Amino acid sequence: MSAPPRFLVLGGDGYVGWPVALRLAVENPRARVLVVDNLTRRRLVGEVGGDSVTPIAPPAERVAAFRAWSGLSNLDVVDLDVSDPVIDALVLEERPTHVYHLAQQASAPYSMSDTERAVFTVRNNEIGNLRVLWAIRRHVPQAHLVKLGSFGEYARPGFDVAEGYFRPTWRGVEATVDTPFPRAADDIYHATKINDTNFISVACRKWGLRVTDVMQSTIFGVHTHETAGHPELYTRYDYDAFFGTVLNRFLCQAVVGVPLTVYGTGFQRTGLMALEDAVGSLVALGAQPVAPGEHRVVNHVTERDFCINQIAARVVEVAATRGYTARIDRTHDPRAERDSERATYRIEAGHVDRHVRHTPLLDVIGPVFDIVAANAARIDPARFAPTVRWCT
Amino acid sequence: MSAPPRFLVLGGDGYVGWPVALRLAVENPRARVLVVDNLTRRRLVGEVGGDSVTPIAPPAERVAAFRAWSGLSNLDVVDLDVSDPVIDALVLEERPTHVYHLAQQASAPYSMSDTERAVFTVRNNEIGNLRVLWAIRRHVPQAHLVKLGSFGEYARPGFDVAEGYFRPTWRGVEATVDTPFPRAADDIYHATKINDTNFISVACRKWGLRVTDVMQSTIFGVHTHETAGHPELYTRYDYDAFFGTVLNRFLCQAVVGVPLTVYGTGFQRTGLMALEDAVGSLVALGAQPVAPGEHRVVNHVTERDFCINQIAARVVEVAATRGYTARIDRTHDPRAERDSERATYRIEAGHVDRHVRHTPLLDVIGPVFDIVAANAARIDPARFAPTVRWCT
Repeated sequence: MSAPPRFLVLGGDGYVGWPVALRLAVENPRARVLVVDNLTRRRLVGEVGGDSVTPIAPPAERVAAFRAWSGLSNLDVVDLDVSDPVIDALVLEERPTHVYHLAQQASAPYSMSDTERAVFTVRNNEIGNLRVLWAIRRHVPQAHLVKLGSFGEYARPGFDVAEGYFRPTWRGVEATVDTPFPRAADDIYHATKINDTNFISVACRKWGLRVTDVMQSTIFGVHTHETAGHPELYTRYDYDAFFGTVLNRFLCQAVVGVPLTVYGTGFQRTGLMALEDAVGSLVALGAQPVAPGEHRVVNHVTERDFCINQIAARVVEVAATRGYTARIDRTHDPRAERDSERATYRIEAGHVDRHVRHTPLLDVIGPVFDIVAANAARIDPARFAPTVRWCT
Repeated sequence: MSAPPRFLVLGGDGYVGWPVALRLAVENPRARVLVVDNLTRRRLVGEVGGDSVTPIAPPAERVAAFRAWSGLSNLDVVDLDVSDPVIDALVLEERPTHVYHLAQQASAPYSMSDTERAVFTVRNNEIGNLRVLWAIRRHVPQAHLVKLGSFGEYARPGFDVAEGYFRPTWRGVEATVDTPFPRAADDIYHATKINDTNFISVACRKWGLRVTDVMQSTIFGVHTHETAGHPELYTRYDYDAFFGTVLNRFLCQAVVGVPLTVYGTGFQRTGLMALEDAVGSLVALGAQPVAPGEHRVVNHVTERDFCINQIAARVVEVAATRGYTARIDRTHDPRAERDSERATYRIEAGHVDRHVRHTPLLDVIGPVFDIVAANAARIDPARFAPTVRWCT
């Protein structure tokens, strides 16, 4: 019988990290699952005046709640900044077999709101990522790193978006080697995710690390199948203009009875993925062997054809079934969204198509609406409107 | 009569920055030219045990030498770290019309030699670049930024290397918008240069900045036409395994009578450019208007067809004309150089082809050999051999 795996979940107090840590602990009762988090997400959301609609207990209470619910004692949490040199000592001590790296500042508006916040994003994301890569190289080069990237890293040339690498043709000559799909960001946050991918690519090719690099679309939901009905285990739900997704904001707007604000034409496409599907897939991906030196890029998206208008319409529809009348307001365009988002192109997602459950968006919106409605008193409508001057 | 330009030369104490600052001062006698440098290059070269073959005086003495030689008093120097928040105050106070940004850690081996050096490279290069972009946005959004990138940012798909952007075809569909040419690095340093390009792209498109982004090939030489015969104005000449170029090392090896070490097959192609041509072009590029929001990418390379074997042969040839017998040693391959370097592809360099002088490599090697030979006592052969374990 082989030794049980040892998981580090960097950013395991965050929106995706927490349910991933729970799933890893439940599915691997003999494994150690160590959440590593310095609570940056909580701090930054507070800094911009937001708060999770779902109440989030302090880390020790969350872990106690998990233990009480599961009867397991294999989940722990440590307060540590991955961009600090101490990450090296942690990796040396823990000797993880698997590292989930989700410890990143994930707000584009935050990264664009002033110099120090932009610099913080680079330091936290890129230097954190780089220290994780070096620590793995030094102490556990056989470990499997599962890194949360962003689908927003990709450029949109007007043709299909490949899964990480492709072989394009230019001037009649086809590429002779796998070539990185072009990447381009509209904000500093997404640029840091591209930059992380570049460091990972070096670490795989030059150091032989094993990495699954997940180009993640917007995730939606607050619980997974095992935690349904256990609010003490729900993950956070942000709705403010910095950390909230558009879908989260729409639901809050519907619940408190203000118009759903659609920015621009509303034809911008956005990839989506149910939290249940994303968590299941991330856990499964970690269990799949990756060869030394392999930079496996996975486009993590299930719902690929929604535009903002369609999402708003779904929310209006679900609200109506609950007796809420939601309206749509189209008079704002704070970000000057990309025209090209209106174009049609396909997104390659071979792994997701073959191996990942596709929960329909509507199946998730209903239960989430009810959870948001139950916490309506925690919603501050002043947090909906963007305050960042995105463009000059 | 319009107000004279105000130049900031970030990294103006470095190898390229110093001759650029001199040329700007000479060609713009009414302009203010402020060198901004915290002497990082000197410090890091010293840290790895190297030193410039050409003696480099302290900054104040260099400026005094310039003033004595030129009769001009328009060149000054300030000790400042561009990755420090104080860069914002400097840009506010100086209100430059042109910013030359060459203040970067430029050694690939240094960036790969340990965690803290890799982190330093990210902090110095990327956070420095980001602070410069923010400071320009805040205080002088009309200023023209000329940023030194690297030709090594580009991936090598097996077809021609475009000048920054291109319109490839995939699965029969041609790109409908200008798309970033794919980029890929083999080391952390080059990854930071790619990452800088990503931040610059955001700053142009979202903030309307005006940037000339120079994909620079290896530069060679120690003086320009105006400083020939004035050793007190020469730029630095590094030959150590961290900061020296292969050509610089070959010349030193020939001068001290040890074999020229060709790593790998020697068929690796490397782009080259004479210092005279690079400086002239950088100064000319700065004077050309760039539209608001324009990210002008320039491939800065003149000699595109040299492989390492050919460079070694040229050095042997030039050494022979001076009575030195140089041999070549092919027994080492510390970096496991890319096989694909042997492939033939063209490099697009439209601007350089139309507007930049192409000084033949041989015309530069001779005079530089003589300068190196005159300083032979300053060469330590122990600095030639690489010490960094590049790959795992």
